Amino acid sequence: MTSEYYTFGPYKISSKEVFYTTPLSFAFVNLRPVLPGHVLVCPRREVKRFVDLTAEETNDLWLAAKKIGGQLEIFHKASSLTFTIQDGPDAGQTVPHVHVHILPRKAKDFKNNDEIYDAIDEKGKELKQKLNLDQERKDRSLDEMTQEADDYRKLFSIPDSLFL
Amino acid sequence: MTSEYYTFGPYKISSKEVFYTTPLSFAFVNLRPVLPGHVLVCPRREVKRFVDLTAEETNDLWLAAKKIGGQLEIFHKASSLTFTIQDGPDAGQTVPHVHVHILPRKAKDFKNNDEIYDAIDEKGKELKQKLNLDQERKDRSLDEMTQEADDYRKLFSIPDSLFL
Repeated sequence: MTSEYYTFGPYKISSKEVFYTTPLSFAFVNLRPVLPGHVLVCPRREVKRFVDLTAEETNDLWLAAKKIGGQLEIFHKASSLTFTIQDGPDAGQTVPHVHVHILPRKAKDFKNNDEIYDAIDEKGKELKQKLNLDQERKDRSLDEMTQEADDYRKLFSIPDSLFL
Repeated sequence: MTSEYYTFGPYKISSKEVFYTTPLSFAFVNLRPVLPGHVLVCPRREVKRFVDLTAEETNDLWLAAKKIGGQLEIFHKASSLTFTIQDGPDAGQTVPHVHVHILPRKAKDFKNNDEIYDAIDEKGKELKQKLNLDQERKDRSLDEMTQEADDYRKLFSIPDSLFL
């Protein structure tokens, strides 16, 4: 058990919630996923806009996202994936740290296929509010998130010794 | 003037509509952009799903997308960018060839910030219908698209000799 944290904009993400890491990126489960397997992938460096990533960070981020998406689609018996960067506030970005949303998709998972984007934003706004309030942050328990992250971590077979 | 085409799933994209190319990717203007500067970036190789791209194609695609997004945001005096891959039919993919949507975003460009995704899909469906009907495909003229592609091409200063 570790008390290490990863930095996600102004927030701290427990390493228990992180299930995949690379030299330049990390992936973690969501406090309030809009669909099963909705996860985020970030550069380790706190950078607000996508254009500010180095080539190495960009490559690392998207190779990680591709690998994670492929595994989670199978794990969740999904049929498609949504990959999105909301890059800047006017694109719906609520946490000023570049992050790729990955969502395993299934037929008719949303009545209107794209209501999912509204859902991402609503959750983002809630996240922003809730993360300032520790007791409210328990809407989804750390145990549940840890369990999910543990499940995903097995998919990628990362030895704990390499995990942080 | 050239009569060369690029392959985008079952469709042929005139090189006049293509404004940026790399060894493994190409970017082109939209028949029906949902916002000014809404463009697509594709791997040259016709691959349906993101997971099937090689590492080299993935890196090339996203470095191109990052560069294009950064330039078009400035060109269109926008403040943010949306980057999306609708990866598979259940994520809204209508053309079975991996493509990154890039959309320069401004405050309140859509009443609801995420109506843009509905718009992408609606345009996609229309595209699919229209591209099978040559006369209907002129909803946006080739001249207009060529002009836009010419404008963008200047942003990236690609000598014509390197263009195809």
